[in-house]
Amino acid sequence: MGFSSFASRAAARFLEDIRRPAGVSTAALLLTAASGGGIVAYADSSRAEEASEPPPRKKKVVVLGTGWAGTSFLKNLDSSRYEVKVISPRNYFAFTPLLPSVTCGTVEARSIVEPIRRMFDKKRKDVAYYEAECFKIDPSKKAVHCRSAVGTNLDGNGDFMVDYDYLVVALGATVNTFNTPGVMEHCHFLKEVEDAQKIRKSVIDCFERASLPNLSEEEKRKILHFVIIGGGPTGVEFAAELHDFLVEDLVKLYPAIEEFVKITIIQSGEHILNTFDQRIAVFAESKFQRDGIELSTGFRVIKVSDDSITVKCKSSGVETLVPYGMAIWSAGIGTRPVITEFMNQVGQGKRRALATNEWLRVRECDSVYAIGDCSSISQRKIMEDISTVFKVADKDNSGTLTLKEINDILEDICIRYPQVELYMKSMHMLDISDLIKGGVGDANKESMVVDIEEFKKALCHVDSQVKTVPATAQVAAQQGYYLADCFNKMDHCVEHPEGPLRLTGSGEGHHNFRPFRYKHLGQFAPLGGEQAAAELPGDWVSMGHSTQWLWYSVYASKQVSWRTRVLVVSDWTRRFIFGRDSSRI
Amino acid sequence: MGFSSFASRAAARFLEDIRRPAGVSTAALLLTAASGGGIVAYADSSRAEEASEPPPRKKKVVVLGTGWAGTSFLKNLDSSRYEVKVISPRNYFAFTPLLPSVTCGTVEARSIVEPIRRMFDKKRKDVAYYEAECFKIDPSKKAVHCRSAVGTNLDGNGDFMVDYDYLVVALGATVNTFNTPGVMEHCHFLKEVEDAQKIRKSVIDCFERASLPNLSEEEKRKILHFVIIGGGPTGVEFAAELHDFLVEDLVKLYPAIEEFVKITIIQSGEHILNTFDQRIAVFAESKFQRDGIELSTGFRVIKVSDDSITVKCKSSGVETLVPYGMAIWSAGIGTRPVITEFMNQVGQGKRRALATNEWLRVRECDSVYAIGDCSSISQRKIMEDISTVFKVADKDNSGTLTLKEINDILEDICIRYPQVELYMKSMHMLDISDLIKGGVGDANKESMVVDIEEFKKALCHVDSQVKTVPATAQVAAQQGYYLADCFNKMDHCVEHPEGPLRLTGSGEGHHNFRPFRYKHLGQFAPLGGEQAAAELPGDWVSMGHSTQWLWYSVYASKQVSWRTRVLVVSDWTRRFIFGRDSSRI
Ligand SMILES: Cc1cc2nc3c(=O)[nH]c(=O)nc-3n(C[C@H](O)[C@H](O)[C@H](O)COP(=O)(O)OP(=O)(O)OC[C@H]3O[C@@H](n4cnc5c(N)ncnc54)[C@H](O)[C@@H]3O)c2cc1C
Ligand SMILES: Cc1cc2nc3c(=O)[nH]c(=O)nc-3n(C[C@H](O)[C@H](O)[C@H](O)COP(=O)(O)OP(=O)(O)OC[C@H]3O[C@@H](n4cnc5c(N)ncnc54)[C@H](O)[C@@H]3O)c2cc1C
Repeated sequence: MGFSSFASRAAARFLEDIRRPAGVSTAALLLTAASGGGIVAYADSSRAEEASEPPPRKKKVVVLGTGWAGTSFLKNLDSSRYEVKVISPRNYFAFTPLLPSVTCGTVEARSIVEPIRRMFDKKRKDVAYYEAECFKIDPSKKAVHCRSAVGTNLDGNGDFMVDYDYLVVALGATVNTFNTPGVMEHCHFLKEVEDAQKIRKSVIDCFERASLPNLSEEEKRKILHFVIIGGGPTGVEFAAELHDFLVEDLVKLYPAIEEFVKITIIQSGEHILNTFDQRIAVFAESKFQRDGIELSTGFRVIKVSDDSITVKCKSSGVETLVPYGMAIWSAGIGTRPVITEFMNQVGQGKRRALATNEWLRVRECDSVYAIGDCSSISQRKIMEDISTVFKVADKDNSGTLTLKEINDILEDICIRYPQVELYMKSMHMLDISDLIKGGVGDANKESMVVDIEEFKKALCHVDSQVKTVPATAQVAAQQGYYLADCFNKMDHCVEHPEGPLRLTGSGEGHHNFRPFRYKHLGQFAPLGGEQAAAELPGDWVSMGHSTQWLWYSVYASKQVSWRTRVLVVSDWTRRFIFGRDSSRI
Repeated sequence: MGFSSFASRAAARFLEDIRRPAGVSTAALLLTAASGGGIVAYADSSRAEEASEPPPRKKKVVVLGTGWAGTSFLKNLDSSRYEVKVISPRNYFAFTPLLPSVTCGTVEARSIVEPIRRMFDKKRKDVAYYEAECFKIDPSKKAVHCRSAVGTNLDGNGDFMVDYDYLVVALGATVNTFNTPGVMEHCHFLKEVEDAQKIRKSVIDCFERASLPNLSEEEKRKILHFVIIGGGPTGVEFAAELHDFLVEDLVKLYPAIEEFVKITIIQSGEHILNTFDQRIAVFAESKFQRDGIELSTGFRVIKVSDDSITVKCKSSGVETLVPYGMAIWSAGIGTRPVITEFMNQVGQGKRRALATNEWLRVRECDSVYAIGDCSSISQRKIMEDISTVFKVADKDNSGTLTLKEINDILEDICIRYPQVELYMKSMHMLDISDLIKGGVGDANKESMVVDIEEFKKALCHVDSQVKTVPATAQVAAQQGYYLADCFNKMDHCVEHPEGPLRLTGSGEGHHNFRPFRYKHLGQFAPLGGEQAAAELPGDWVSMGHSTQWLWYSVYASKQVSWRTRVLVVSDWTRRFIFGRDSSRI
């Protein structure tokens, strides 16, 4: 059995009953178009249709947040089964991947948002939405405390409490300044639609300020120095947008100050786009160099004042003052205060994000689920359960496992502990016997038997392959979809569990659901000048003008509604014809 | 000679050499389309083409403001003749007639603005623009003091001074609360693009707030009570927009609270739209009644607190408290502080707006011109100059005027004192002799002679017809166009004056230019539900659905650029297809 056949066997049950579900989240499929139709590993929700007594009271599901994770959950939840309440300070969903385009007016803010209520209305979902902020989660009372986002103008102070049977926390992340002094006060961020609007205004402000009379060249240079701190995808995309805005639109309107403009990216690592394939990073760096965008790699920002940034060279330790006109901080994400407080309550005080199990339930906290950027899955290590795994596999209680016994349980192991598969792949092993051999030495394949010690020895390095999922829209959307699917078939799965064998602790029966499994569908990096780079599934990399067109078509197809799709495409068209607007509004 | 022939004769020189000027401001022609091509009474600027020595130094023209008046001036000014500087805190022009549509998202804010620099760029004008506020005009030093609108981030405080040879003040007006307590703090206004954006957010806020849990019906009713103070065109149009937004979009998304919504217009006069034809006011009132928009006419607002408005019935004097969720104040315009200060300096302390002469020059202030909402023309009364007029007319120095002598000077009189023509029209007089008859009794037409006393008696009521021009975009645009035209032919007209005979004081020779004459091209009142009313030239009135289509076509054609035209039309189309967006951004 070669590796590929092994892989397909392991995935067999996964894919067994997949058909493209009618209501599959466009978000979950982000980039599927690019990958030529990657198959998404979700179980079919139509199973949950079997008749059941109408329950006396619908269980209350409260969803916090209307970002990628929250809306993906809501769109796919069968809301007739639950009493659903949604709480979020923004009454819309924002298509964040296009936020960098909003900063320079390539697309308009309104073109990338969709009101939550309209989403429900179109799908005829009976869901209550409250425009409010949750400021405290109280798992002991099963309630969340909320505050109207706009002040209620009422006699009371506008606070209210909502209780739940199940809570879905999808609060996203906030910015992280790593406590660098001055960043909060002087830098722009790019997390929300308002941020993008502010940045747009600020860019124009810099150009207008530099056009005022009586300024020295040095002052103009300072005002027109745009500094981007953080060379991740967001920072890079913003730099590219800004450069396009400059050369395509602003130089015409501000010819007198063109020569003073400079864009700098400060990146602490050695390369920008370091979560991307190396080839893409190199391509991006050389394109930026041609464009005159300065890359200061290997520098760390240690302080920001109102007119200069202090950077420290990581190799030499030398500090330098960089005068600037506008700075954007896009270096990492942090935890929202309400999440921090909740983590303290449930004994996760020292973490960056809410830890969940592989089924997205918050650890040590019944009935609370967390999805998206505010959460991170802590994958169970196989070595913690190794004795149980051995016991369950050893059907004849012989104290040793034959290859057949291992193969029989292999699928459950691979579902429960994806690191096993990843490890074998990383070691170019073709077969489980190759892995086991590591425990017993060169045994004959057919007659190979292993005892517990040999079994442990064979698997001892596997857990090094435990991967955390990245904080991206793709992950958030897939988690939302997955969780809604579990909720939809909750009753059914109690009686007909779908999950792998329980291999933990006393280990009996099956888990109700399969664990969440992230399917990476690739990623894009638009680089400006109608060029983009893309990492596609299967280690494919694509760069240049045609990739930009791929980007246009994928992003157009992935819009949440026809309305936003039309708007985004007409924004692009408008930009081609008329350029970007430079009004300061 | 019948009245119509009189009128045409009086207008003859006006129209003499008119051809539709190629670069005529679209703004000046606002509504021309509606009037079937009304002719605009401007002299042709091509005359100023004659060769002249290149002057050693170009005169400096400083323009304050980039609204209707300022941009109309700038677009039509031959900027090669002057060194032009423009100062305004907004680097764009806003098409104010569509502002009410922005409040509810029927069109987007960006679709009605055009960057000033783009206007210059397109017309290849060499004009300097500074994004700054003028905070002091110093006519003695011939300079204006300015402050950067955004803070310069420089070592200095960002103030600077600009000197001028000619100053064009086009600063517009501000809101006027008539010192009603609480209005500034609690009401919305609708003057700027930002105001419209804020209103849009606030409307959504009210709906979201009223959807929160635990509210009594009374509280919901209060939050969803939208009060518009002032029943002028802006207030009425906003009410119509809001009503459309409600019934076409919001009821679908907020079905649970639909019944609590109420819109009220508070108007101190007996009718709304009192600057319009009575038929239009009646039509609007009955439409609003059918729509359920409450009209509280005859009430004056005397106080606004954070949750209620105190109104006083003008007839009974009874005061009532009106609970509200959101209030818009659109009752009158006021003077900007910088104008008030300037008026104090030039001895116009007690006025509401800068007084100019009929050539738009600020009274008692050389080289300073004022156009648009910040100014008002003080028309010279004929009775002040009656002796000079008599003397100039009495060519043979006989001490009496014959009908022929009067007719010879009639055109100059009508140009200089438009009230004469208006008076005759108002009295249904067919001929100048009818007017003179008032002085001499039933004299025989042919042999009629009048002495100075009879002449005075005949004209003594004429000045009652002096009209102030309204504070509208039409006026502002026509003034800007007129003034630019005068600037373009300034050199030429010194030698070849175009204006009427000087009839003031010692009265010698001709004025360099004809005085500004406002040509009213009609006005629209969109009433919602795809209905509008229009007052067209020649006492025509048009109401209903077809008028709305007329409105669409006129407003589309009057956009300042192809870009905004395309955007506005596509906004309308988008609204028809997808409705208005209710995201709170
Ligand atoms: C500029 C930018 C570009 C990006 N580009 C990409 C990309 O190209 N591809 C990609 O895969 N990912 C991209 N991402 C990342 C992606 O946006 C996030 O990973 C994703 O938004 C996470 O989804 P989420 O639902 O967890 O959080 P969010 O989408 O951030 O949603 C959080 C929600 O919680 C609400 N909320 C916040 N506080 C409270 C509170 N106290 N109470 C109630 N509700 C609250 C918020 O209003 C929001 O609705 C980008 C992100 C940014 C900022
Ligand atoms: C909601 C609304 C709807 C309207 N609808 C119509 C309509 O349908 N038809 C019609 O004819 N009229 C309409 N009007 C009236 C019309 O907008 C005004 O009459 C017109 O704008 C006056 O032009 P302006 O140039 O004098 O002033 P504005 O257009 O107000 O321009 C003033 C300019 O001065 C600038 N400025 C302000 N302060 C300073 C400072 N300190 N220093 C430098 N610059 C400064 C401003 O930024 C602005 O650029 C409407 C007005 C509003 C508010």
